[in-house]
Amino acid sequence: MNFSSKLLEQAVTEFGRLPGVGQKTALRLVLHLLKQPDADVSRFTETLDRLKREIRHCSICHNISDNPVCEICASYKRNKGLICIVEDTRDVMAIENTNQYHGVYHVLGGLISPMDGIGPSDLQIESLIKRLQAGEVHEVILALSATMEGDTTIFYLYKKLKQFGVQISTIARGIAFGGELEYVDEVTLGRSIATRVPYERSIA
Amino acid sequence: MNFSSKLLEQAVTEFGRLPGVGQKTALRLVLHLLKQPDADVSRFTETLDRLKREIRHCSICHNISDNPVCEICASYKRNKGLICIVEDTRDVMAIENTNQYHGVYHVLGGLISPMDGIGPSDLQIESLIKRLQAGEVHEVILALSATMEGDTTIFYLYKKLKQFGVQISTIARGIAFGGELEYVDEVTLGRSIATRVPYERSIA
Repeated sequence: MNFSSKLLEQAVTEFGRLPGVGQKTALRLVLHLLKQPDADVSRFTETLDRLKREIRHCSICHNISDNPVCEICASYKRNKGLICIVEDTRDVMAIENTNQYHGVYHVLGGLISPMDGIGPSDLQIESLIKRLQAGEVHEVILALSATMEGDTTIFYLYKKLKQFGVQISTIARGIAFGGELEYVDEVTLGRSIATRVPYERSIA
Repeated sequence: MNFSSKLLEQAVTEFGRLPGVGQKTALRLVLHLLKQPDADVSRFTETLDRLKREIRHCSICHNISDNPVCEICASYKRNKGLICIVEDTRDVMAIENTNQYHGVYHVLGGLISPMDGIGPSDLQIESLIKRLQAGEVHEVILALSATMEGDTTIFYLYKKLKQFGVQISTIARGIAFGGELEYVDEVTLGRSIATRVPYERSIA
């Protein structure tokens, strides 16, 4: 693109670094911000600066939190013996939205991915092991994505955690509620037949 | 969404104000920035702050520029007697990319749109009239979008500008190069038959 201004070009380059934002979208966003009142743009940049400077992670579960211990870990209503292991804070939000889970979480901060150079030591696994060593946990649920990285991480964690004698489960995989059989991919359909459940259990 | 942190929620709200960015995308962008080095995020916010503080518009054509007069208006190679009237800087970039135009520009900064409360006085029309009053211009090209707002603005400008005795033209409308007839909408096809050009001119 032929920019009429270096400053404009820099701003477009910065926006273009964001995931899923191409140069045309970046230019649209920058021109939008240029049309906004100064105060709105200052608030935008100040919020980002504050976020980066002040954001904290819960010292127990590593979820993003404003306090040293997050609301979920601090709640007496939560079952501290049940830990759900997730990739990031978005997964915590998704599971919280179901209103079906009353245990606590452990946020890994990523998945094992040799392609991206992310190994076990880059994730919050040491602190997870410490939580299990404390001895109060009776079950961990591995709620990770059904991708190669997710499966690799599940396998690694299973081998690491089984020594503690806790129950280790993974979330059920199969066809989605409302899903029509003919549109389900073969792998999912095949596995969901292989891992079929007795009808009485499925309506429990 | 159930945010685990007020700061996170604020940042997502700010990103969500951008056009075309929903809450889920905003959260993805914010979590991406959180994973970046501090220096990258500072550079992002500083660039935006500088952009908003230091951006200038060319005093002649109102295009975004780092200098008081933009490169195009300052170039002795450009035909100052031919002005192309466009909505914003994106249109200047698009036309410059064609390498077909050697006149200068006039950036209106928007289109007349009663729905959005944008009237002629919100656009750079007064300064356009001053340029024509100087008497050096022999032709203006109205290169505005083929939308209701574009057509309204063209009609308004035509009435305002014809008193100056300059030639007023609009960019050609019709089927795009490479376009197949059966996929062209009826209005475009009908108009492109009504405004057909002699073959000799079409290959000029």
